[in-house]
Amino acid sequence: MSERLFVKELANGMTVLGQQMDHVSSAAMTLVVRSGAAYDPPEAAGAASVACEWCLRGAGDRSTRQLNDALDAMGCQHHESVRSEHLLLTAAQLGRNLPAVLAMFADILRRPRLEDETFAPSRALIEQDLASLEDEPARKCSLLLREKFYPSPLGRCIYGSPETLGALEPAMIRGHVRQHVGPTGAILAVAGKIDWPSLCDRAEELFGDWPATEPQVQELSGPAGGVTHVSKDSAQAHIALAYRSVPIHHRQYYAARMAEMVLSGGASARLHTEVREKRGLAYHVASHYHSLKDHAGMFAYAGTRPEIARQTFERIVTEIRRLADGVADAEITRARTQLRSALIMQGESTSARASALASDWYHLGRVRSLAELSRATQSVTADDVVAHLRDCPPGEFTVLVIGPEPLDTSILDC
Amino acid sequence: MSERLFVKELANGMTVLGQQMDHVSSAAMTLVVRSGAAYDPPEAAGAASVACEWCLRGAGDRSTRQLNDALDAMGCQHHESVRSEHLLLTAAQLGRNLPAVLAMFADILRRPRLEDETFAPSRALIEQDLASLEDEPARKCSLLLREKFYPSPLGRCIYGSPETLGALEPAMIRGHVRQHVGPTGAILAVAGKIDWPSLCDRAEELFGDWPATEPQVQELSGPAGGVTHVSKDSAQAHIALAYRSVPIHHRQYYAARMAEMVLSGGASARLHTEVREKRGLAYHVASHYHSLKDHAGMFAYAGTRPEIARQTFERIVTEIRRLADGVADAEITRARTQLRSALIMQGESTSARASALASDWYHLGRVRSLAELSRATQSVTADDVVAHLRDCPPGEFTVLVIGPEPLDTSILDC
Repeated sequence: MSERLFVKELANGMTVLGQQMDHVSSAAMTLVVRSGAAYDPPEAAGAASVACEWCLRGAGDRSTRQLNDALDAMGCQHHESVRSEHLLLTAAQLGRNLPAVLAMFADILRRPRLEDETFAPSRALIEQDLASLEDEPARKCSLLLREKFYPSPLGRCIYGSPETLGALEPAMIRGHVRQHVGPTGAILAVAGKIDWPSLCDRAEELFGDWPATEPQVQELSGPAGGVTHVSKDSAQAHIALAYRSVPIHHRQYYAARMAEMVLSGGASARLHTEVREKRGLAYHVASHYHSLKDHAGMFAYAGTRPEIARQTFERIVTEIRRLADGVADAEITRARTQLRSALIMQGESTSARASALASDWYHLGRVRSLAELSRATQSVTADDVVAHLRDCPPGEFTVLVIGPEPLDTSILDC
Repeated sequence: MSERLFVKELANGMTVLGQQMDHVSSAAMTLVVRSGAAYDPPEAAGAASVACEWCLRGAGDRSTRQLNDALDAMGCQHHESVRSEHLLLTAAQLGRNLPAVLAMFADILRRPRLEDETFAPSRALIEQDLASLEDEPARKCSLLLREKFYPSPLGRCIYGSPETLGALEPAMIRGHVRQHVGPTGAILAVAGKIDWPSLCDRAEELFGDWPATEPQVQELSGPAGGVTHVSKDSAQAHIALAYRSVPIHHRQYYAARMAEMVLSGGASARLHTEVREKRGLAYHVASHYHSLKDHAGMFAYAGTRPEIARQTFERIVTEIRRLADGVADAEITRARTQLRSALIMQGESTSARASALASDWYHLGRVRSLAELSRATQSVTADDVVAHLRDCPPGEFTVLVIGPEPLDTSILDC
């Protein structure tokens, strides 16, 4: 597999990344700017989410309606979301429509209209999305866990609260957009049917004169950690827990990912086998790795009947702790094959590659080829995994439970 | 784009479909057998779901553990699910591992162990999944709507009820598997890095001597239709509604899909514009087309605050009815571009193509190339859409609401 990867850094701090993929007609794009929920002032939590919604309400020469029409007329499938550290825009379309779509996203970021009359409906939608969390306890559980697990404000709920949302004003959001939506640290990653020189010219034309912004420094506190029970008359006990792992730029990153595979990388993995298959404790049980720039964790979740919640929780904790006792070579061999296979399949998706390039640049300041990723994952041994778990033991758990009864977590003291 | 599509019908009633895609390394597979929830005896509703879970608990020479290990060792990402008319197995892996994975799925379907000791945990998981629905009102709403909308038992909830699940016995499920899991009407569709002659040989070897089954004829009754309110102390009102459309084999199918695009095919579509953007009534609002063999519908959903539930419902109904008044050429042009773009992007995904081939064969008895699909969608005019809506007006709505208050649906009588 030949991989044609390109990097161009604009003078204002924005980076353009590209992967030219032959034999496809589509071009996928990931665009991140430093306007995540962690940059919201505490009294204005939810500002980034409202800003994201509001920026789509007309930009440049186009009204909301004209903008939506124009993106759909390009066959562009796009999605906008707010993360902890970033505002994330993704789009997939035919390669030949990329230049036109890029111009629209440049308008959205650089020339959003932010008109008074579209502010209230934008905020109303975020209020609705926040309210809908009450009917999705599994999603709420994961969001609240992040809040407790990461140092504040990195894990902050992207929706804020009814109070902070209610207090937002148009002028404040306009200031937020001016301060945070800029080229400093911004990344545009494109994969698929692209012509790299033309893409660079287009990016320079659309973003080259975007004035640099002054990135705000975040003061971190916490994390809160501990065990939190949110009482709810739900049918299931929703159990989420997290423990510290190493971030993507850490030298033990690949060992950490391999540990994750052994724990939860398929039907043969330990959580699936011990919790779901042998004991039927939970229909859904899984863990996943998540990394911010300098903080990372392993996050596990299970939804189960309240009367077996304690048993489920204890089994998950036991399996996590048991990892440090050793990992069989067969488990590592399977994990390697799964990772290699997953990498090759990701390599066939323009969207997956655009997203990976942007992530690499943010976390590592460079892009990794699939060949490098494959080599790195193939070289991790069972000893590396155990050494990692000894250096970075899953000692302190942060636990978040939503359900009718508090959970007995005394196993954490053993 | 050259499309190499192949069809081979085995003597026992099973069909093998293939699309050879150059420049990819993966091969995705969709395998459907006629063992959907609609074939469950009424007193044993949920049998297909338990059977699906149980069939994965060891097959052929392999125990549960060995089977899970072996699939993961092939880097196989697989998923099993029960639908109304089918048991659906999907798998994606490197093309070179496809022959080995196929053999495992032949074991799962033809030689499941179905041992007494794995029955209870299999059933317990389905009971858990059913219970988890109570904490996912949006999902529950959609499932209950199907039950009311389709003639019984086509829309039946795949989980059955606590009572029917509790009454299931191992012997009964074994009989169910013998009767329904067979080659009659079964479809194996593979797309990606395949060698068609070898795939045919392999399929013949693994499935050629699978004895034909006697397909049960379903007696249909209903549908129930009407307006149903499920009282729940939820934060949101979950509103789902459906109306009759034409099935995939109908000559107006493409016009129906185009109507769907105009209604809900992107941010410029009518539901998004009128419900979400202009009025901020619901964060999530969308409709989609769904087709069984001979029955099809358009299904819309919105989750919203109870106090604006009526307004939201009336707006959705109004937009659906307004379709028949006429569709602008600009809307059709956008919908065509979106569909063409989506088709080309699906054509780059082995999983999407395998799934589309299987669906084509089931619904049409032949496979459609992307070129044919593209031509057909590009030729639909605004007049075709309006003519379709006049022939098949969204007259009778089936409505399902989960929320704290009954919904005023008097607009349906206007």
